[in-house]
Amino acid sequence: MRRIKLIIEYDGTNYNGSQIQTNGHTIQEELQQCIERLTGEKVSVLFAGRTDTGVHALRQVVAFDTGSTIPPERWQYALNSVLPDDIKVLQSTEAEAGFHPRFDAVSKTYRYKIYRKPWGQTFWRNYAYLCTEELDVEAMGQAARRLEGTHDFRSFCASGSSVKNFERTVLSCRLVEAEPFLYLDITANGFLYNMVRIIMGTLLEVGRGSLAPEDMDRILTARDRSLAGPTAPPQGLYLMEVHYPEKQPLGK
Amino acid sequence: MRRIKLIIEYDGTNYNGSQIQTNGHTIQEELQQCIERLTGEKVSVLFAGRTDTGVHALRQVVAFDTGSTIPPERWQYALNSVLPDDIKVLQSTEAEAGFHPRFDAVSKTYRYKIYRKPWGQTFWRNYAYLCTEELDVEAMGQAARRLEGTHDFRSFCASGSSVKNFERTVLSCRLVEAEPFLYLDITANGFLYNMVRIIMGTLLEVGRGSLAPEDMDRILTARDRSLAGPTAPPQGLYLMEVHYPEKQPLGK
Repeated sequence: MRRIKLIIEYDGTNYNGSQIQTNGHTIQEELQQCIERLTGEKVSVLFAGRTDTGVHALRQVVAFDTGSTIPPERWQYALNSVLPDDIKVLQSTEAEAGFHPRFDAVSKTYRYKIYRKPWGQTFWRNYAYLCTEELDVEAMGQAARRLEGTHDFRSFCASGSSVKNFERTVLSCRLVEAEPFLYLDITANGFLYNMVRIIMGTLLEVGRGSLAPEDMDRILTARDRSLAGPTAPPQGLYLMEVHYPEKQPLGK
Repeated sequence: MRRIKLIIEYDGTNYNGSQIQTNGHTIQEELQQCIERLTGEKVSVLFAGRTDTGVHALRQVVAFDTGSTIPPERWQYALNSVLPDDIKVLQSTEAEAGFHPRFDAVSKTYRYKIYRKPWGQTFWRNYAYLCTEELDVEAMGQAARRLEGTHDFRSFCASGSSVKNFERTVLSCRLVEAEPFLYLDITANGFLYNMVRIIMGTLLEVGRGSLAPEDMDRILTARDRSLAGPTAPPQGLYLMEVHYPEKQPLGK
């Protein structure tokens, strides 16, 4: 048996998220079916980050164990020959036996895309949040940077989440203007459920003037979801990159 | 009765082209149904340019006659409230009674988009031709410019076309590098069936070295479809702009 690590991209529009569930078609299900088609093996594919319905990934990291003789670097071509064209393997390599895409990751980067022009929207409706309102981008950028650092992010976590520890370290939270887009780029050691989308929804409130940048401190301290803004829609969200230590930890 | 002129954009992915036909869902059918829903009137919508299955439009021009009291500039909002989100009205105005979007146009501009990177393809599969081969873009640009001017374009027309006159004037035919894209931008007083896609397919042969820029002259002169390259796939093609005389001709 060896463990294969894949870097994959996918257009999440037509999927009910990344993880297998009772109802609906998922990225994990599609990958596992394709691996079974190639090898006859029923495998369980591990993901670095879970993505919701409609959320995209540019460099998601996944892994699985196989007894197949397919050389590690050939898995890319083998899988691409059977995967639908909205999922693509960008790289395949052999990982250490104990490699876990999620637990071994030190941080992940997400981008939230806002499309700001009144034309061209039909082409971005599934790939960005369409917003032509005037926004105070300067204030949004200031608000974003107030989230950097180690905080209790309970206010930015969907209610009903089962996690116990809401403390996360946001390494970078920046707004990037790239006409006709506005990006929120956020890197953290971990993310709570819907965290990026709630941060984006809250920053939009700042952009509209309903909240001031300083309000972010108050919202963080309150640890109360109802004080943050609404959850921005899924189609603007992209898992961009999963970061690992320079050397994979031994053993584990 | 007044004639309403619309500028519309659409994502052609889920349509069987622009023009109503017996089988399949079309842009014209969708527009006509929405107008009927708003006014009760059965209208016939005229198009500036016909687009095939999977072909997109950024500023298509259409027109129709209506007895409705909806003010011309309100048609934009009225239609957008009922149209699906892959068709959008960008502008609505009243046109002269005799205005015809196709016959009054002096020229049209199309863009063909090629996406050249091995990553990000899942997001462009319906919106560009994916091509990671190395291409001699310099030679392609030279070949493109040899098509400018007035020529018989029979070699670049799908066989079986019913037109009699194959002469068209290409006002501009240029290749534009815009990483990770390569664009073919072409403006002409008229286009034959599949003309842009056959030109693109032929320029790709030049890019691969199978044809030289000078071969374009030979292909034009031969007036033989079989000498030109293959028809490039539809999803890379966009109707960009329809050009009218500064003042609409009186009467007509």
